[in-house]
Amino acid sequence: MLQIGIIGAAECSAEGAALAYEVGTLLAQQGAVLVCGGLSGVMESAARGAKEAGGSTVGILPGVEVREANPYIDIKIVTGLSHARNILVVRSSEALIAIEGGYGTLSEIAIALKLGKPVVGLNTWNVDPNIIQVKTAAEAVAKALIMIHR
Amino acid sequence: MLQIGIIGAAECSAEGAALAYEVGTLLAQQGAVLVCGGLSGVMESAARGAKEAGGSTVGILPGVEVREANPYIDIKIVTGLSHARNILVVRSSEALIAIEGGYGTLSEIAIALKLGKPVVGLNTWNVDPNIIQVKTAAEAVAKALIMIHR
Amino acid sequence: MLQIGIIGAAECSAEGAALAYEVGTLLAQQGAVLVCGGLSGVMESAARGAKEAGGSTVGILPGVEVREANPYIDIKIVTGLSHARNILVVRSSEALIAIEGGYGTLSEIAIALKLGKPVVGLNTWNVDPNIIQVKTAAEAVAKALIMIHR
Amino acid sequence: MLQIGIIGAAECSAEGAALAYEVGTLLAQQGAVLVCGGLSGVMESAARGAKEAGGSTVGILPGVEVREANPYIDIKIVTGLSHARNILVVRSSEALIAIEGGYGTLSEIAIALKLGKPVVGLNTWNVDPNIIQVKTAAEAVAKALIMIHR
Repeated sequence: MLQIGIIGAAECSAEGAALAYEVGTLLAQQGAVLVCGGLSGVMESAARGAKEAGGSTVGILPGVEVREANPYIDIKIVTGLSHARNILVVRSSEALIAIEGGYGTLSEIAIALKLGKPVVGLNTWNVDPNIIQVKTAAEAVAKALIMIHR
Repeated sequence: MLQIGIIGAAECSAEGAALAYEVGTLLAQQGAVLVCGGLSGVMESAARGAKEAGGSTVGILPGVEVREANPYIDIKIVTGLSHARNILVVRSSEALIAIEGGYGTLSEIAIALKLGKPVVGLNTWNVDPNIIQVKTAAEAVAKALIMIHR
Repeated sequence: MLQIGIIGAAECSAEGAALAYEVGTLLAQQGAVLVCGGLSGVMESAARGAKEAGGSTVGILPGVEVREANPYIDIKIVTGLSHARNILVVRSSEALIAIEGGYGTLSEIAIALKLGKPVVGLNTWNVDPNIIQVKTAAEAVAKALIMIHR
Repeated sequence: MLQIGIIGAAECSAEGAALAYEVGTLLAQQGAVLVCGGLSGVMESAARGAKEAGGSTVGILPGVEVREANPYIDIKIVTGLSHARNILVVRSSEALIAIEGGYGTLSEIAIALKLGKPVVGLNTWNVDPNIIQVKTAAEAVAKALIMIHR
């Protein structure tokens, strides 16, 4: 199964939440498994979008409690690794879609670029030409899929 | 979804493989998601049993390559953490079933006991009274489920 | 510099604390750097022994706060990895001396054996012939040093 | 002991190496312990500067081999965690000085900012106002020390 990661902060704007929901929906419609950090904000909206479209979701959690997962996570990976779990989100995804996000998201973008994985950005850090900046959820999913199969 | 871990070595006896296959089958029939280290031996036989019974499988891989997963793993968590991924297998499971196994399996049993998780053993390390030793795959699955719901 | 690990629980008996103190002293006298988990109990007594004999100490801490280190730790490695830091204690040591200990210590012994590192035991888990059981701190340090240089 | 981290790539320019050497020297003269990733490039030049000025150095290594450390590392933390060790470099430092650097360095800068640690930059990523950009090694060390004691 194709695993695509969504990265973004546990707090996001209404617009970010809507974009995340739509990205989750589209990934589910493409048959991709959504991988994320399992918490609230962008992660929760994306997972809700995926679940409501019949998709599967994986949350790679930073803490030691399975209950910190948002309600739309199917598979809960409990790491107890704190921010080091960010690297697992990146490694477990064939491409990453970043939506808004703060410093944690920037760390994930950086690791993804380090590992040579495609990173598509929606209203996120615009700090490197290798981040493929797009404007819509549909473009984000299309670009992520194209980059993988290239 | 209920996540149950199967722990054991990447090399195992024919008997161990048969036990693992049967445990995987029974867990799938109970609707549990099988969590394991994703490699060969006990992990592969258990995952094959689960998949052939229509279940779901998660492999928490030690290396950096998704292709190190055995062919029966649905969700591939690529950690790049080497043996530190053992702790994630334990944390991501509500109970653990150990089948045979060497020192790596012993480390997982020890962490599971440290975290107060049920550990059921089939022909495995018999080094502590809190490891619930059983003789059959059916007993192993039954004990694991009972211990969780207690 | 030669790095030797001391493993044992954050709570220990008076006898365990005395043994740990003596092991720490002897390691410092041999010029070895003491590596441990940085917390209380066996870890603190060993580190105190090393410091009072003029040695150096490293604490590989499980949490996110440098202040969780005991007062005898020189170099504080703050991991935020919880029990996964156990594996770093093992990997960063050329030999391990286990003193008493519970399940956490057992997990470290198991990882050390998995990695083929010498493990010397003082009143600890006696679950495998590859754990070299000794009775005194002097024997523990002598055995650890001999095993490394073999 | 005060622990300050130097972050930068395993390959760097001659100018970056010279800056790293000077930062290492100055940190040693201030009595700080230099924490780094233990490899070549910026890490090696900084560690050499610190050692030649009589200081102490810690290398938090990504791989499983102690011999991957550069020759100027006193304390070798062998993690086997690959890029996840970046987070330990950040957590184990009270302030970070970034010199040049690629995506790995960017991930460390991001985690440091996430954790609220001071980050001083020398010819490095200029992507956020919270990175304190300076021009000389002396300014970098002075700024790092001032930020900690604030």
